[in-house]
Amino acid sequence: MNLLDEYKKVREHSNFLCSHLIKEDYSLQASEEVSPPKWHLAHTTWFFEQFILVQSLPNYVIKHPQFNFLFNSYYNAMGKRTVRNQRGLMSRPSVDEVMEYRSYVDEAMSQLIIQGDPKTAELVVLGMNHEQQHQELLLSDLKFSLWHNPLNPQVLSIQEYTPEKERQWISIEEGVYPIGFEEKGFCYDNEMGRHSVYIHPFSISSSLVTNGQYLEFIQSGAYRESRLWLDEGWSWVQQNQISSPLYWEENEGDWSYYTLDGMKKLDPKAAVSHVSFYEAQAYATWRGERLPTEFEWEVSQSQFEWGKRWEWTYSAYLPYPGFEVAPGALGEYNGKFMVNQMVLRGASVATPAGHSRPTYRNFFHPQFRWQFKGIRLAKSNNL
Amino acid sequence: MNLLDEYKKVREHSNFLCSHLIKEDYSLQASEEVSPPKWHLAHTTWFFEQFILVQSLPNYVIKHPQFNFLFNSYYNAMGKRTVRNQRGLMSRPSVDEVMEYRSYVDEAMSQLIIQGDPKTAELVVLGMNHEQQHQELLLSDLKFSLWHNPLNPQVLSIQEYTPEKERQWISIEEGVYPIGFEEKGFCYDNEMGRHSVYIHPFSISSSLVTNGQYLEFIQSGAYRESRLWLDEGWSWVQQNQISSPLYWEENEGDWSYYTLDGMKKLDPKAAVSHVSFYEAQAYATWRGERLPTEFEWEVSQSQFEWGKRWEWTYSAYLPYPGFEVAPGALGEYNGKFMVNQMVLRGASVATPAGHSRPTYRNFFHPQFRWQFKGIRLAKSNNL
Amino acid sequence: MNLLDEYKKVREHSNFLCSHLIKEDYSLQASEEVSPPKWHLAHTTWFFEQFILVQSLPNYVIKHPQFNFLFNSYYNAMGKRTVRNQRGLMSRPSVDEVMEYRSYVDEAMSQLIIQGDPKTAELVVLGMNHEQQHQELLLSDLKFSLWHNPLNPQVLSIQEYTPEKERQWISIEEGVYPIGFEEKGFCYDNEMGRHSVYIHPFSISSSLVTNGQYLEFIQSGAYRESRLWLDEGWSWVQQNQISSPLYWEENEGDWSYYTLDGMKKLDPKAAVSHVSFYEAQAYATWRGERLPTEFEWEVSQSQFEWGKRWEWTYSAYLPYPGFEVAPGALGEYNGKFMVNQMVLRGASVATPAGHSRPTYRNFFHPQFRWQFKGIRLAKSNNL
Amino acid sequence: MNLLDEYKKVREHSNFLCSHLIKEDYSLQASEEVSPPKWHLAHTTWFFEQFILVQSLPNYVIKHPQFNFLFNSYYNAMGKRTVRNQRGLMSRPSVDEVMEYRSYVDEAMSQLIIQGDPKTAELVVLGMNHEQQHQELLLSDLKFSLWHNPLNPQVLSIQEYTPEKERQWISIEEGVYPIGFEEKGFCYDNEMGRHSVYIHPFSISSSLVTNGQYLEFIQSGAYRESRLWLDEGWSWVQQNQISSPLYWEENEGDWSYYTLDGMKKLDPKAAVSHVSFYEAQAYATWRGERLPTEFEWEVSQSQFEWGKRWEWTYSAYLPYPGFEVAPGALGEYNGKFMVNQMVLRGASVATPAGHSRPTYRNFFHPQFRWQFKGIRLAKSNNL
Repeated sequence: MNLLDEYKKVREHSNFLCSHLIKEDYSLQASEEVSPPKWHLAHTTWFFEQFILVQSLPNYVIKHPQFNFLFNSYYNAMGKRTVRNQRGLMSRPSVDEVMEYRSYVDEAMSQLIIQGDPKTAELVVLGMNHEQQHQELLLSDLKFSLWHNPLNPQVLSIQEYTPEKERQWISIEEGVYPIGFEEKGFCYDNEMGRHSVYIHPFSISSSLVTNGQYLEFIQSGAYRESRLWLDEGWSWVQQNQISSPLYWEENEGDWSYYTLDGMKKLDPKAAVSHVSFYEAQAYATWRGERLPTEFEWEVSQSQFEWGKRWEWTYSAYLPYPGFEVAPGALGEYNGKFMVNQMVLRGASVATPAGHSRPTYRNFFHPQFRWQFKGIRLAKSNNL
Repeated sequence: MNLLDEYKKVREHSNFLCSHLIKEDYSLQASEEVSPPKWHLAHTTWFFEQFILVQSLPNYVIKHPQFNFLFNSYYNAMGKRTVRNQRGLMSRPSVDEVMEYRSYVDEAMSQLIIQGDPKTAELVVLGMNHEQQHQELLLSDLKFSLWHNPLNPQVLSIQEYTPEKERQWISIEEGVYPIGFEEKGFCYDNEMGRHSVYIHPFSISSSLVTNGQYLEFIQSGAYRESRLWLDEGWSWVQQNQISSPLYWEENEGDWSYYTLDGMKKLDPKAAVSHVSFYEAQAYATWRGERLPTEFEWEVSQSQFEWGKRWEWTYSAYLPYPGFEVAPGALGEYNGKFMVNQMVLRGASVATPAGHSRPTYRNFFHPQFRWQFKGIRLAKSNNL
Repeated sequence: MNLLDEYKKVREHSNFLCSHLIKEDYSLQASEEVSPPKWHLAHTTWFFEQFILVQSLPNYVIKHPQFNFLFNSYYNAMGKRTVRNQRGLMSRPSVDEVMEYRSYVDEAMSQLIIQGDPKTAELVVLGMNHEQQHQELLLSDLKFSLWHNPLNPQVLSIQEYTPEKERQWISIEEGVYPIGFEEKGFCYDNEMGRHSVYIHPFSISSSLVTNGQYLEFIQSGAYRESRLWLDEGWSWVQQNQISSPLYWEENEGDWSYYTLDGMKKLDPKAAVSHVSFYEAQAYATWRGERLPTEFEWEVSQSQFEWGKRWEWTYSAYLPYPGFEVAPGALGEYNGKFMVNQMVLRGASVATPAGHSRPTYRNFFHPQFRWQFKGIRLAKSNNL
Repeated sequence: MNLLDEYKKVREHSNFLCSHLIKEDYSLQASEEVSPPKWHLAHTTWFFEQFILVQSLPNYVIKHPQFNFLFNSYYNAMGKRTVRNQRGLMSRPSVDEVMEYRSYVDEAMSQLIIQGDPKTAELVVLGMNHEQQHQELLLSDLKFSLWHNPLNPQVLSIQEYTPEKERQWISIEEGVYPIGFEEKGFCYDNEMGRHSVYIHPFSISSSLVTNGQYLEFIQSGAYRESRLWLDEGWSWVQQNQISSPLYWEENEGDWSYYTLDGMKKLDPKAAVSHVSFYEAQAYATWRGERLPTEFEWEVSQSQFEWGKRWEWTYSAYLPYPGFEVAPGALGEYNGKFMVNQMVLRGASVATPAGHSRPTYRNFFHPQFRWQFKGIRLAKSNNL
């Protein structure tokens, strides 16, 4: 597929994700950490306008001067941002105006892309990856926001849940292994710097922990057993009165959960999802096993299936050796978040096709659960 | 006008207030204390359905069973409420569905009203007054929510501001005066219990404090002068870094303010609005005068013009002698708020025609400013 | 007794209240609203130094320049205050140094008092009343702070609880009554301005509500019954998980409470204490009666016994007609608190002898319970 | 030295650290994260009683049954804890009683130690190390608490600040290095599991960043420059209005700081201290360098002087390969804190003699500053 077709495909996918929405849904923001669909749609468009069109397309006229202010995100270097927790209050510009903005930018981008400049192409690919990342967020943010509605609306006809196979232990030998991106094609700055890591012998599970297995953990009383939890995890459980994964509901012993397709009976064979790092870690402790490090995951990933759930690792999100922040606004992309977050590896049902690779490093604070996060277990050998 | 016509007129006025809105605006809720337009439209409708149709119209079929849950307000007696600060998350039911709900209930109400039952008529009048009260809130809530939008949208073509006349002192003699509602027609339970109050000699201003007069107060440094303020007022000023009325903006010495009709240059002749009780009280102290009590206001009100701004009094919102809470859900209307609030008297530009009277008691916490609140001064004589 | 003897007696009483303390107790501050014993002892001393000695005793040398800063309270006009919730962190000056400060000031005050200047005498009486007011606070603050100690220490050998007599209804006729201080002697500015109030016919109870009566209210499930409560009261109950008066503890059906004399079995005949205004009001509603206004209390108080518990009234703390704030620092005494507080009348077991009178107006926010507050009921007649 | 002498020496050092205190100081707790001196003295004693005497000394009688409750810390497995932020309210037991408790336990411990049981000896060494760890906390907690006193009291006659030498870059070769404790003697569980780490070529500074160097960073406007900061660091700076290290004060261009020995003029040659991880990281970014990892620190530490300041590393506090939590209450020691904290290496002026070693891993949340934390810089070579 040529770049223009790929560009159009990515852009259309964002629209597809909103195909079940009514206009009233586009402003939903159920917590400070999530953003409204309209904001995702406009922000990804602004990214192309600001970082590509303004600089590379002669005579390009900015659609609306205030959009630079309204749809900027965390790029502190680009000017005053709108307050993050008030994005849901932006009823104007309207959905129609945002859609018009998308068309306007798409037309200009088409003109630019067909000129075939390689430097531009590189930025276009970055913009497409940026939009794909937001597509994942759009879907999990939307699920979270619509869950607050007592009517339990359907988000999209996507089957979240497929059965896991029986687990096998995959053994990995001790030694020095290469880590980080080396292939051709796109990757983020945080994956770069191919380097060596010493790995000690370990085994990793071929499958994810299932809802049924997690239910046993719940039923054993684990949410009331402090010794299973990290100290902050235990505070989190108590302060928020947590007793199950996000979206789970119990009614007289029967469990159901909110999915993209509405409320469903809990499927015990499907991989558990929407758990915090604290829960993943407590589950592993309860099983007498542990979470893998991100390096263990990367060196073993070719031997198991992944892609349904982002998988928590017991690695903090830190720079690789030689990591350097790029100059300018694009340099704010990843490095500034390298503290107090844990690495997730893999991909999820919300990840757009073509947006996953073995070296991808996702990262979240340990308490957050609204993405499709799961648990894969590991254990140390001979230590 | 007959009751049915009056009913229709009240109901249509709610729609009129939303005539400039796009669908995305109907869910706006900029703080816990305000409600989205859609919620006001549905809640006032639910009130007619729940307290009148369900009980008085045979064979009436409830539009949607969950609306009872969704659009209930503070009536704890009627069942589990939706969390107040999450009303803005109710993207569904849609605006169209709420409008359909209004039509459905209006049709049933019309059937019922023409039957002419006097007991029903009394409840209909209560429901109409309830909706009118929400119209005032709808407008001030909407102004507050749209103000958060950096695009400063117009709310409605209403001229908020007309010039004040020069002030005269109106003197009132000492003595025992009657207070409370005695006429025929509708009033709320909190106005009832006609009773005697001993009034000491005082004078009251014929006009409201203007923007120009208030600006002198600001320019004197009053917001940095603790001795002018009540202790809690001073804390409020400091914690919230208050330095002017709500909606005022200063730009290199020029003052403008956000109005229903968008941003405007500050009019020094118009009555000041959107001040807290703390600011009203500090202003009076700075002038060497004081706020009137609600009783002083009531016995003198026939001698001055009022109706542009709700006017802060130095009376706490307390029960009149013999006040009793009505049994059942309607009894939760007023009495339960009788602590920590101050009484406002008069009416405002947002008050619907026919919804004001001399005995009306409005009430708010002293820090709130988003209603159209103003300042009328008084002073004691010969004490 | 002459003024010097009275002065000494008041000052000695403060020391007496601390007679059971160890040095470690003098800094206790269990919440922002209470102050440590050492602070009370020093602040009352500072008051004499700052407002009397510095101005009236020639050649008086201030004990320590920083005490002006450390032991000031809310008198914003006197300079930068220490942060209120950090008074407990003031381990220095030591208890010994504070006691030395007291002696030093007492000696200078003695010199000054014997000179017999009438203007000074007036200020001395104000300072003595100020210290007596702090004695009441010192005792209730100390009880509150020591209650946090799992060892339940004894505060003082005071019997808090004596049995109530059977209740009689005392009827009062309708009419205009005089309110406020008129006698000779000392009173606060908030009691002044003898004025007329119109009273409607009512009855008031001769006795206070007892622990036994209040227990019935608890056992009826009243703390889970929203309709009995003011709206803010209900929020307070739920947010703080309130289910009984402060200091009460239930153990398998047996009730005990923490008293100045340590933990005791609950005495059902004694007057209930340590209730919030919300609880007092909910109790009255549950009984089908009501709280009196402060005016009803004042005109009827000669016909019943009072003095064990401060009694909540359903009157907000507001200025009397003609109230004016005194100029200078002393003017900050009372007027600045006239919003969001309710009036209490009477006195309590913690009130020093000679510090109570029928016109005394105490005031607190409706949620506070650590003073010795009780409930006297009233009802309207013929309305 | 034999074990009994070592035991006595450690215990006496705790008393020495309190030698300048008055009784009122022993309860100071200026924030939830710090503990009062009395609590440290009692808790370390309780540790010996609970984990050694109760289990190993026949006929040992517990000093006071409630001390188990009062002086427990985070060992959730041992019973209900006292609320952490209310330790300062424990005026009883008195300082004298706590000192008596220390003597009582010391006597019993002496009896036990001389019996020479090797299993007991191991636990005694753990208890001694536990007390030494608390000595470091006691001193930094006390400095923090006394700093809140406007009188700026002296904590102890310790010279915090000695000049740094000029910095040299020490180069380390690429390769696989051993990490973790291997020697004989005591170490914590988090240091164990000697294992291999692959190190890339880097250089590390021979000296710490000085106050003078840090002052240049301040004067360059770095605290107002978002691009220098991690995202959470920038929020922390803004929300807390941070503009210098803790304890620094500026007065018309002159800088001073609060030290254990009272307020002093800032020494530009001494190592900077009391900085957060965010500040350390921003400083490194500003210099175009970086913080070392804990592994880089460990493999190079023999080539530079350390021991004045705990040194922030850019390593998150995570388990070493094969780390396992010990069973029982002692197992709660370290593993439960392995999330959201950063590793510090080295030791500080507050570290007791004999309580430091190259493999020691200290850890704190990135925002905390009240310990003696400093900055050592590193840089990557040839990457």
